[in-house]
Amino acid sequence: MAVREKVFDVIIRCFKRHGAEVIDTPVFELKETLTGKYGEDSKLIYDLKDQGGELLSLRYDLTVPFARYLAMNKLTNIKRYHIAKVYRRDNPAMTRGRYREFYQCDFDIAGNFDPMIPDAECLKIMCEILSSLQIGDFLVKVNDRRILDGMFAICGVSDSKFRTICSSVDKLDKVSWEEVKNEMVGEKGLAPEVADRIGDYVQQHGGVSLVEQLLQDPKLSQNKQALEGLGDLKLLFEYLTLFGIDDKISFDLSLARGLDYYTGVIYEAVLLQTPAQAGEEPLGVGSVAAGGRYDGLVGMFDPKGRKVPCVGLSIGVERIFSIVEQRLEALEEKVRTTETQVLVASAQKKLLEERLKLVSELWDAGIKAELLYKKNPKLLNQLQYCEEAGIPLVAIIGEQELKDGVIKLRSVTSREEVNVRREDLVEEIKRRTGQPLRIC
Amino acid sequence: MAVREKVFDVIIRCFKRHGAEVIDTPVFELKETLTGKYGEDSKLIYDLKDQGGELLSLRYDLTVPFARYLAMNKLTNIKRYHIAKVYRRDNPAMTRGRYREFYQCDFDIAGNFDPMIPDAECLKIMCEILSSLQIGDFLVKVNDRRILDGMFAICGVSDSKFRTICSSVDKLDKVSWEEVKNEMVGEKGLAPEVADRIGDYVQQHGGVSLVEQLLQDPKLSQNKQALEGLGDLKLLFEYLTLFGIDDKISFDLSLARGLDYYTGVIYEAVLLQTPAQAGEEPLGVGSVAAGGRYDGLVGMFDPKGRKVPCVGLSIGVERIFSIVEQRLEALEEKVRTTETQVLVASAQKKLLEERLKLVSELWDAGIKAELLYKKNPKLLNQLQYCEEAGIPLVAIIGEQELKDGVIKLRSVTSREEVNVRREDLVEEIKRRTGQPLRIC
Repeated sequence: MAVREKVFDVIIRCFKRHGAEVIDTPVFELKETLTGKYGEDSKLIYDLKDQGGELLSLRYDLTVPFARYLAMNKLTNIKRYHIAKVYRRDNPAMTRGRYREFYQCDFDIAGNFDPMIPDAECLKIMCEILSSLQIGDFLVKVNDRRILDGMFAICGVSDSKFRTICSSVDKLDKVSWEEVKNEMVGEKGLAPEVADRIGDYVQQHGGVSLVEQLLQDPKLSQNKQALEGLGDLKLLFEYLTLFGIDDKISFDLSLARGLDYYTGVIYEAVLLQTPAQAGEEPLGVGSVAAGGRYDGLVGMFDPKGRKVPCVGLSIGVERIFSIVEQRLEALEEKVRTTETQVLVASAQKKLLEERLKLVSELWDAGIKAELLYKKNPKLLNQLQYCEEAGIPLVAIIGEQELKDGVIKLRSVTSREEVNVRREDLVEEIKRRTGQPLRIC
Repeated sequence: MAVREKVFDVIIRCFKRHGAEVIDTPVFELKETLTGKYGEDSKLIYDLKDQGGELLSLRYDLTVPFARYLAMNKLTNIKRYHIAKVYRRDNPAMTRGRYREFYQCDFDIAGNFDPMIPDAECLKIMCEILSSLQIGDFLVKVNDRRILDGMFAICGVSDSKFRTICSSVDKLDKVSWEEVKNEMVGEKGLAPEVADRIGDYVQQHGGVSLVEQLLQDPKLSQNKQALEGLGDLKLLFEYLTLFGIDDKISFDLSLARGLDYYTGVIYEAVLLQTPAQAGEEPLGVGSVAAGGRYDGLVGMFDPKGRKVPCVGLSIGVERIFSIVEQRLEALEEKVRTTETQVLVASAQKKLLEERLKLVSELWDAGIKAELLYKKNPKLLNQLQYCEEAGIPLVAIIGEQELKDGVIKLRSVTSREEVNVRREDLVEEIKRRTGQPLRIC
């Protein structure tokens, strides 16, 4: 939890820096709200028992509840973040950060705006967060559903097979083109020459120059959807250059994303191994953030089908927790789980009352303080407690100190002790622990 | 959510000030974990549908999961807080802050310690939080389950009726003694003279002097359990005096608390109406925090029944949200839902690129900044957006400013505008919005 709080803090600060408000929705939704939104993965939804009343399910992600919330409250314009747990009846894989109950950290911009401005901001946010977390080098793959659909059309895939071929393409980050082609031809009934044509496209990736090259592609440029997608990507790259993150972005025709609801730009951030470890090309070690544009989802919940265009991103925070934890373990770095600044201790017996009085004074002054819950603890035990809990200071009361109106302040690491006048103790603790003055 | 975050912030700061670490447990527990822990209220537990695998229920509170967690991880010593949602299939009452899904904010101290030191700290924490929240005057009622049980015994209640008579007594904060007596005699089969004997006790409340008076009570002082409870309460009052909160505490023999698992001291904080509104005695307007000692619960989850004594408190944060919201409404005070410090705007057309460049510079410097997602927004619309969202500053770019290497910084409330050199802009915004220097 201590690690989690640090990661959340980085993420929340970034979301707030971009002017988002925070919303909350219930952990369960009406079962029908979730039905038909997640394709094959719908079988992973947790249902509640029918105990009378509405049929309910636990939320599967935060995007569908957000769209439901917008439609229900007739909101057409909001920038919000939502950090909460979602639920999937999946096989957990602890080391890879995959659980049945896990956090999602979502940021979305809803509203009718000029093209690619909010989309570019979403990518900027992803880059800011991944850089701040210092979890290694990363790359953001970008594509557009309209380019994919246009590409499928000109390669000769029938409309009805777009989504299933899309999910085959989506596997290219894990398996080879040969295997994907086998699936397309063997399982999904595509003609081999159609698959090969797709193969020529989806194995390409690059920067804005690839966008421009495809805009000249004699076939693709004839497809209206693909042309729109490519035009928008070109604009997107312009904005990303202004944001100073174009070097982090790769236009990758193999990026497809699993979810049904995307309608435009899609993206996925992957961590790269260090070049020394991998061969020529950096090897992806998995997605840590993803998102895209979904202009049709809110309309599905509006009685009149009114659309609210949305674009957003989700940080794969459980994977990030695993990475940060592993790094801390490797460094043998101990993370403090409390923030206590000072332990109120005594060197002699019969000073419980004095300890209680002093710790109370410190709490009232906003100092994070503890005492051992024993009448007559040994000084050694009190010092040991500080070492274990990482408490930096000990305020020691003794008979003589009480007479002199001072407290002995001891630094746990240096073992230095100085007498501080009781009325100066709060200021001295704040000074030593670098806590800004603040009224609590 | 903006109000909630402020309330949570006060609570979390207090919990951390008292040296607690934070833990998290899953939203669902094994059904059997919850069975038999909540008495009559067990019918309010939400179950998950049996989709194969374990039978699960949504947690009903945070105390039972905490005890399960301690036993499962063989922890005998921890001070933790947990802020999370719990679930009850109850009739919601929005205005009173009663929902089916609601937050609990729990702080608990587990471990074998000298008597009443952690118990006193829990009461101190309750007082600190309720004072910091500034939701009006409050009183903390204190009693002890052992005193109640001893009292029932000497009044002639049979052992088997202790719990059910206890829950009748618990209603005394809502209904009159006459009604409670009727329930005891009519529904629960108590002899009227037994009920009257109980009535003589439970209508008493006061300070430490009442404890001392009852220690002299010829009958009660003969009961071992009651004597233990009274002895501990006397000690508790000593510590509360040292903590400077004895004036907030009332020893109240009618306080019983509904839950089965309490074994010692119990307490409940109630808000008081202003004396002007009520008659002679301040009228309670409902419980906003409660807790007590439960020394047997962890043992119920340990295969060998090993006990871990615990004491804790729970802040009734939904009630507090309602109160704070109502107060803000009455004051017609608008709460900002974002923290944006500056809007990057332009006075002329064709400056989108310049706006994107500047907003990106500000984000990278840790400034909370926004821009309108339009190519050529009107200045008036940009200023209006600031007024609505409560953004204090506008950084305006124009052709002339670009040439001069300055940005026009406008205060939204005073409408004052000054030219700031671009390289000084970040510092000037931080200075004006009082943000401490911090690397993001």
